[in-house]
Amino acid sequence: MDDIIRPGRRHYVVLSHTVPADGDFSLNDLPGSGGRVDVVARCVSSSLLTSNGIRRDTSITVCLSSGARPVSVSVYGSSVRYLNPDERSTAALIRNALVKSSAAEEGLSSPGIYFSHQTLSDVIEHAKEGRECYLLSETGKPAGMLGTPSLVVLGDHTGITVEEELLLERLEFMKVSLSMLSLQSDQCISISNWMMDKAH
Amino acid sequence: MDDIIRPGRRHYVVLSHTVPADGDFSLNDLPGSGGRVDVVARCVSSSLLTSNGIRRDTSITVCLSSGARPVSVSVYGSSVRYLNPDERSTAALIRNALVKSSAAEEGLSSPGIYFSHQTLSDVIEHAKEGRECYLLSETGKPAGMLGTPSLVVLGDHTGITVEEELLLERLEFMKVSLSMLSLQSDQCISISNWMMDKAH
Repeated sequence: MDDIIRPGRRHYVVLSHTVPADGDFSLNDLPGSGGRVDVVARCVSSSLLTSNGIRRDTSITVCLSSGARPVSVSVYGSSVRYLNPDERSTAALIRNALVKSSAAEEGLSSPGIYFSHQTLSDVIEHAKEGRECYLLSETGKPAGMLGTPSLVVLGDHTGITVEEELLLERLEFMKVSLSMLSLQSDQCISISNWMMDKAH
Repeated sequence: MDDIIRPGRRHYVVLSHTVPADGDFSLNDLPGSGGRVDVVARCVSSSLLTSNGIRRDTSITVCLSSGARPVSVSVYGSSVRYLNPDERSTAALIRNALVKSSAAEEGLSSPGIYFSHQTLSDVIEHAKEGRECYLLSETGKPAGMLGTPSLVVLGDHTGITVEEELLLERLEFMKVSLSMLSLQSDQCISISNWMMDKAH
């Protein structure tokens, strides 16, 4: 449980609004029955994987708000196993965590993957400690570089809700934009990682 | 056929060494039976897609060298249809082009997707006209920014072969590295696009 107490120095939080929180979806239809879980799977891969390697200093939490209760799934680069770059196998790991979250308050679903029913506010409060906090947003000010260690929050293909934005404003997140274009979430993570690698 | 004559200003070429050139693979096992076609699918998505949009000025050619004859599959942002961000549906479009290439010299397999049996040398010679030419390589010199319009060549998960590297050297490609880390091909494309968006 060491990785839960000391997550990586670089942490991402992805706000997912459409993935079925009970994990009831088919791996043959990630965009449809999975509610665009392909987006979430790509975010996990982009944040943690390099070519043939894992970013041991990085972690990511996916916060799902589609169900009756919030569910969060955290993947820790320091200890994750069985993580491959393809969407389907990553979606399978996430599905496994979601299915187990239906029957338990919290726990590890597989090595390095932890689920809980914490609220978004609790997840963020816990993760922001000792980190520079960024919210990626098209309406943010242009980001030259990103500081490190950092907590980077971003939305899924639907963006973020007004409530989520208000929460992050209250917690004094810096709202930054990476590009003049509206990019996909996993592309934003690849660029953020690159920026932070450079700063480091 | 307009798009074949005038491909986008920004062009990527991905060198694929393990995807079955006859398209004989299962969409349920892209990494295994598909010979890591998931890598190629992510490259196509990263190069052409933004959030809810297509880069109309960008195109990508995947050059497959696993079969008895070379096969290239080009996807043109200017005219492609049915392109979605998930790996599976993109791999299906590629598979369709590969299957059709077994029975024809060249043609469109679906709108904006063109296959042929051109050699790598021919593909590159054609694409380099009027573009700044880069080879992404871990041993290249650090890239500050990438010029535009450009042709960016990169390898798959296996990198590039000695023969490919010699060809690109002979054609005076600038060998550049994006990061101190070894990144995945699609991550490199996301970062390259971001750099070129910025320069533009």
